[in-house]
Amino acid sequence: MTPPQADSRTPGDSRAPGEPTQERARRTRRAIMLAASECFAEVGYATATTSEIAARAGVTKGALAFHFPAKAAIAAAIVEECYEQWPSVLTEAMPAHDRILDVLGEVFARIAAQIREDPIVRATVRLQAERAQISEPVHMPFVDWIATSTDLFRTAAERGELRPGADPGALARASVAGFQGVQHVSGILSGHADVADRVAEWWSVMRTGIGAASDDHVS
Amino acid sequence: MTPPQADSRTPGDSRAPGEPTQERARRTRRAIMLAASECFAEVGYATATTSEIAARAGVTKGALAFHFPAKAAIAAAIVEECYEQWPSVLTEAMPAHDRILDVLGEVFARIAAQIREDPIVRATVRLQAERAQISEPVHMPFVDWIATSTDLFRTAAERGELRPGADPGALARASVAGFQGVQHVSGILSGHADVADRVAEWWSVMRTGIGAASDDHVS
Repeated sequence: MTPPQADSRTPGDSRAPGEPTQERARRTRRAIMLAASECFAEVGYATATTSEIAARAGVTKGALAFHFPAKAAIAAAIVEECYEQWPSVLTEAMPAHDRILDVLGEVFARIAAQIREDPIVRATVRLQAERAQISEPVHMPFVDWIATSTDLFRTAAERGELRPGADPGALARASVAGFQGVQHVSGILSGHADVADRVAEWWSVMRTGIGAASDDHVS
Repeated sequence: MTPPQADSRTPGDSRAPGEPTQERARRTRRAIMLAASECFAEVGYATATTSEIAARAGVTKGALAFHFPAKAAIAAAIVEECYEQWPSVLTEAMPAHDRILDVLGEVFARIAAQIREDPIVRATVRLQAERAQISEPVHMPFVDWIATSTDLFRTAAERGELRPGADPGALARASVAGFQGVQHVSGILSGHADVADRVAEWWSVMRTGIGAASDDHVS
């Protein structure tokens, strides 16, 4: 009689020979997250089922249940991961530009691209719109981005990039809400097919209102 | 044996003596629409039930079924009514201002107020966010407002109110989407308590970007 292996609590995983337990569990969790992201983005939180998610991830329902006690926990984890990965968009855009307003323009453009291409971001956009239906606490939207943008606009003001008297907090709130509206309208009217164009168009209007007079027509 | 009265097809209504049939039916339908608006705004489309709506309207489920075959039909009718009443916001704001940008500012402010105070508008905002759940066709959002705003910005451009080279269609898309985002973020972060302030703040930023240089600091 042999004792159960240490990893026997994660049933249903296909394991590469010699693969460490922890690595296998990480890989399974990742497969579930991605499959769930696709399901949530396609059919919405209410319609997606853990059976469909498990099947798409290629894992058993038991393996899914080992990693996530319920559908709501998967949704909350996806949204959390999205907010964990978003700061890297800013740190990657920062070194590429001298002006803060150019950094912001690139951040908005990159997130617009993610909304079309990144399953975690696609799912997060839909899950945040449906957050009232999710029984687990879901990362509060907008608050982090408003705080980050306020800091950026404050720096921009110190560098003379903004119109005199501009209020960094007001610009941050208007920008974050504006981006949200643009991506939402694009989702409704084109299934996000035109989100990159609409975000670029919107930011051009915003930037004219935000930038110092010398910034006009630069962008 | 007396034949059934002409209005016997609308059971469960409390009828004032001598009230004409059509007037009674209109009043019942109105009560259902308002009660349903409150339910949808408070708990959302999925959670609201026709039983709760009928009880709140003070009508029988039979009376409700006479006017609306299903919950989805009530939702669609509420949204339709909202879009029917919105043009009057513009026609009322038009005579009060010389400048188109002031008209738009008042329109946005009035709709922000309606989002807090008008049950039909409150419900429509939530139902549009949940439109994927509604089995009836629901009036497409944004399209009418983008068309109307494009006409207004075109007039503004002809009158010299806009920055040279401004594209009326781009301004309309950015403004309608921006308003949507601002009301949505306000709904999530404050339950729309601050929607009037946030809309005023956002429009001030937008207007600076939109208006002719001579318009700066007016608003």
